[in-house]
Amino acid sequence: MIERLRQQMEFLVEIDKLKSVSRRAYLMNGSRNENDAEHSWHLALMVMMLQEHANEPSVDLLRVVKMVLVHDIVEIDAGDVSAYDAAGQAGKEERERAAAKRIFGLLPAEQGAELLALWLEFEERETAEAKFAAALDRLAPLLHNYQTEGQTWQEHGITLEMVLARNSQIAQGSERLWEYAQELIRESVEKGYLPQR
Amino acid sequence: MIERLRQQMEFLVEIDKLKSVSRRAYLMNGSRNENDAEHSWHLALMVMMLQEHANEPSVDLLRVVKMVLVHDIVEIDAGDVSAYDAAGQAGKEERERAAAKRIFGLLPAEQGAELLALWLEFEERETAEAKFAAALDRLAPLLHNYQTEGQTWQEHGITLEMVLARNSQIAQGSERLWEYAQELIRESVEKGYLPQR
Repeated sequence: MIERLRQQMEFLVEIDKLKSVSRRAYLMNGSRNENDAEHSWHLALMVMMLQEHANEPSVDLLRVVKMVLVHDIVEIDAGDVSAYDAAGQAGKEERERAAAKRIFGLLPAEQGAELLALWLEFEERETAEAKFAAALDRLAPLLHNYQTEGQTWQEHGITLEMVLARNSQIAQGSERLWEYAQELIRESVEKGYLPQR
Repeated sequence: MIERLRQQMEFLVEIDKLKSVSRRAYLMNGSRNENDAEHSWHLALMVMMLQEHANEPSVDLLRVVKMVLVHDIVEIDAGDVSAYDAAGQAGKEERERAAAKRIFGLLPAEQGAELLALWLEFEERETAEAKFAAALDRLAPLLHNYQTEGQTWQEHGITLEMVLARNSQIAQGSERLWEYAQELIRESVEKGYLPQR
């Protein structure tokens, strides 16, 4: 028991580092970049509040919440790579698998296995839970960009075509939220936050 | 439906502000103060990993996770007040109740009522779920102080007596984690992180 608690605490101390992993997104007030830990918290609240809009509203809420809380932990070792950064995608999967092995491996075996399974489920986007979690993970940066008048889009030269290509996958988790996202995107173009080309 | 989604999104945009509410605690690497959003994320992981140590290990995990994810949202309006700040405690309850009414009131009625009930349950510390959540909310700053060699304790002149008085309530949620906390406190005194008086 004492050894289990020691392992659990070692993991909980290790993941404090997620608070120092910076994302491309800015806080909605534009003051600084968001970090992975606070992003994960925000996603969990989105899951709780938007479940009714999932294509399968009977998704297992606890599993989706756990999934979004752990989905970025591998970035402690592997870093945050923009979805639009083709060069950064090279070797990303291997780096993240090694990170998952090391970090989840700090835990007692069955707890490490649970978190690894949740992370893989999220990455594979096959279950209704993973599709809904992934939809919210894509919707979130749209909200941040809309609120900051396209701060990240402009900083990285992102265009309408790129945003539509990436975010159409929201529909796999929630048709209704994809409709909502398209409305945000249309308004962002109209207001000049997002260049058409 | 469109009105429900608009209300949900207004709430989700509003709570982004929790990422800018600073706590007394420092990140475990000592680099900056922690904020309420990333603290809430970390607590949710503590809940998931430490449930077996609760005095009642059959606590409803989803309810405890939800509770810690929302427990600090009122601080968007009411601010973070140190447990050791007697002056700051004056009027805190009224400020937090007004904040809960305003912020949870942005949501569709039944969702706002659910979050309000979760927040009140946490504050009242009567159910097994609330006692366990509160125990972890007290354990977390101990971990941060231990990892930063007592950074917050020293900055605010906190002594052993104050730490013991405040944290003995951990036992109401978890006798085992209170034993662990006492071990951390003993070591902190031995290493000079926490002054005895």
